[in-house]
Amino acid sequence: MKKFPNRVTLEESRTPKFWYNMLADMPESHDPMLNPGTKQPATPDMLYPVFAEELAKQEFSKERYTEIPKPVRDYLMTFRPSPLYRAYALEKALDTPARIYFKYEGQNTSGSHKLNSAIAQAYYNKEQGITKLTTETGAGQWGTALSMACAHFGMELDVYMVRVSSRQKPYRKAIMETFGANVIESPSNLTNAGRQALALDPETPGSLGVAISEAIEAAVSTQNARYTLGSVLNQVLLHQSIIGLEAKEQMEMYDEYPDVIIGCAGGGSNLGGIISAFMQDRLTGKAKPYFIAVEPAACPSLTRGKYAYDFCDTGKVTPLAKMYTLGSGFVPNSIHAGGLRYHGMSPILSKLYHEKYIDEARAVTQSSVFEAAVRFTRAEGILPAPESAHAIRIAIDEALRCKETGESKSILFGLSGHGNFDLSAYINYNEGKIVDYIPTDEELEKGFASL
Amino acid sequence: MKKFPNRVTLEESRTPKFWYNMLADMPESHDPMLNPGTKQPATPDMLYPVFAEELAKQEFSKERYTEIPKPVRDYLMTFRPSPLYRAYALEKALDTPARIYFKYEGQNTSGSHKLNSAIAQAYYNKEQGITKLTTETGAGQWGTALSMACAHFGMELDVYMVRVSSRQKPYRKAIMETFGANVIESPSNLTNAGRQALALDPETPGSLGVAISEAIEAAVSTQNARYTLGSVLNQVLLHQSIIGLEAKEQMEMYDEYPDVIIGCAGGGSNLGGIISAFMQDRLTGKAKPYFIAVEPAACPSLTRGKYAYDFCDTGKVTPLAKMYTLGSGFVPNSIHAGGLRYHGMSPILSKLYHEKYIDEARAVTQSSVFEAAVRFTRAEGILPAPESAHAIRIAIDEALRCKETGESKSILFGLSGHGNFDLSAYINYNEGKIVDYIPTDEELEKGFASL
Repeated sequence: MKKFPNRVTLEESRTPKFWYNMLADMPESHDPMLNPGTKQPATPDMLYPVFAEELAKQEFSKERYTEIPKPVRDYLMTFRPSPLYRAYALEKALDTPARIYFKYEGQNTSGSHKLNSAIAQAYYNKEQGITKLTTETGAGQWGTALSMACAHFGMELDVYMVRVSSRQKPYRKAIMETFGANVIESPSNLTNAGRQALALDPETPGSLGVAISEAIEAAVSTQNARYTLGSVLNQVLLHQSIIGLEAKEQMEMYDEYPDVIIGCAGGGSNLGGIISAFMQDRLTGKAKPYFIAVEPAACPSLTRGKYAYDFCDTGKVTPLAKMYTLGSGFVPNSIHAGGLRYHGMSPILSKLYHEKYIDEARAVTQSSVFEAAVRFTRAEGILPAPESAHAIRIAIDEALRCKETGESKSILFGLSGHGNFDLSAYINYNEGKIVDYIPTDEELEKGFASL
Repeated sequence: MKKFPNRVTLEESRTPKFWYNMLADMPESHDPMLNPGTKQPATPDMLYPVFAEELAKQEFSKERYTEIPKPVRDYLMTFRPSPLYRAYALEKALDTPARIYFKYEGQNTSGSHKLNSAIAQAYYNKEQGITKLTTETGAGQWGTALSMACAHFGMELDVYMVRVSSRQKPYRKAIMETFGANVIESPSNLTNAGRQALALDPETPGSLGVAISEAIEAAVSTQNARYTLGSVLNQVLLHQSIIGLEAKEQMEMYDEYPDVIIGCAGGGSNLGGIISAFMQDRLTGKAKPYFIAVEPAACPSLTRGKYAYDFCDTGKVTPLAKMYTLGSGFVPNSIHAGGLRYHGMSPILSKLYHEKYIDEARAVTQSSVFEAAVRFTRAEGILPAPESAHAIRIAIDEALRCKETGESKSILFGLSGHGNFDLSAYINYNEGKIVDYIPTDEELEKGFASL
């Protein structure tokens, strides 16, 4: 008889009413954003043309707790608390003494954790009287989430979608349009940044960096419009802290505290979310869980990038951020299908990694990620997004290591979303067409040249 | 301030431990299945070559309650209880005094309620030592659900997928294959039924009726294999009763009893599920909720079919069942994208409709269904399967009628699944390409000729 169920939720009374900010407990903040012209630290008001004022303030906040506004919390409660699962079937399939848990964020129509920040960002903009948002999206998780949030608050939305993704993922475009968003293939002819990129290469597949430049340009040049971003930013990590806050309560329902916590990392929104409450314990000396960030070998910002000031976009219109980066000019090879294609990494997470609070980063190849994804799917009955499957790969590796050593560790990983819209990648994997790509040092040097 | 949340689940202690069988409380059973050769009532042992013995027995059972086997319940509890929502945002968008509730079955990877019966059917077969299952699938919900169930129990599965669906829905095929199922385009060259259909028309789009014939033939001609079906059967309604049993408890959590209960109906698995516990109240005189079955105008078995004995498949290999039917030779026009394409209707539901316990059936056109689906999506943030959206259409119509009359009715509908794999149909709708199709009386006569 199993003592605990496969899945736990949370009573309403135990659900978070506040977001948690890791900066409040870090012994030292990350280096400040810089104005690229003056190299002076940026201030909130410098960001007001781009972000809603409350969000710009959150970007600089060191407050430990921020109350979740009631309309945001009401919306979150339509799909949260997200369930935390004990992966009994996977443990059995692996024949491991490890106890594997995962926090599943895929049970909303957008299909991922991105909705946690999308609804908050839409809300603060709405409160300020902003009527239109712009953003970019790559794989489409963020664009879908923001489309839902804008539909909820009755706001207009322009999504600049990386050209190659827009063409490979017509379903993602369709769902955003069903929510009423205007989806624009990037690079577009609507912005200077887009026109420049098209002039350089009319056949370009597009990139997240260019799409960001376009979306920012569109926002600042439109009446009553603001820009939003689904990762990297401090405000995003704040909103995503709800994942880890819930997960810690839910682990308590299992009478557990995780020995190892694993999250996939692109810009850092998922990793920052799943570690939040546990990192607080680590920073305040209450516990010492072991944190592992997992990234694709094709876009290895933590494992092979430089810790340096860089632009957040390719068009170099953003402030400079101190982070692990492959250079704002770096574009991962388009054969890489696993998402997590951003050149940089959240400054908070970069600092935590640099100071060794995040213990380890591992880069994994696509084929090993899909192998883990299929194994997980058959055991647990949940089809993961390729991004999320990076964490599964390492969770399985750790569980198999426990099998060798006989240790019964408790492993928690963040399953950030479902793969229902990513089946073209699974088709390629099932047909043996997934190709591993690892950039050479020379290729990385080209990216670093943009620093 | 809202008194109640948008969504309720259920405490473990209130979740159903037994399935409920409506036959136990019906004043008169439906007419029995007949052996097509002798016209004598079929018996359980006649079905043993086709179905696992326990399932064959359930097909004839009039027991009120059947205990849910522990392994089935354990699996169900990984995604159940499914949430019940109060559609506050939709009510507001419609400006209606009606209170709208929906029971959402889309929060599992297969994406629909079909998993409730798939796991039960796989279990009873596994217990009997059966190693391989066969089935057919049209839109793909049932095939996906059974693929998950077979992956869980380590069983082989052959899915005969209607050719046109297999080609229009590569993602559905891919997800079944990811779970390890063998997906075969129907008609195939592997069976006599398939070869006959191909000989008649090599370019046939296929049909559910032919795919059923193929799957049954494959099962009975294979060692240790059995056939499974995701709708129509009494056993399926038994397994799906969990939907209504949970829903009744959840409505109590809202201090409500529904005045109107609405379900879409193809073969009846969803409608039979959502009405179960409420129909018990109706049959036993405890309450008198109003039941509405919704079907597509393109395949109107209840509203325009005949109540007669008919085959369940096109190849005429099944027993005869007394049901509302368009004739086993009826194939809905392939421009119909909304699912619910089966020619017949569950014998239990047919009887309940014939005896006016199901008060009303309504046929709706595709364009009106997608209009309702998009309105619902934007308000509630859940993208419905086109099948499920049939119920939304009528729920909205009823809510708008309340607005006219000023009545504050409580409306419950079954949202049987999500539309994440059906975005090609939404793309067509967004592009204005959805065409309504209503068969003429002459077209229906052709189907009746097969009776």
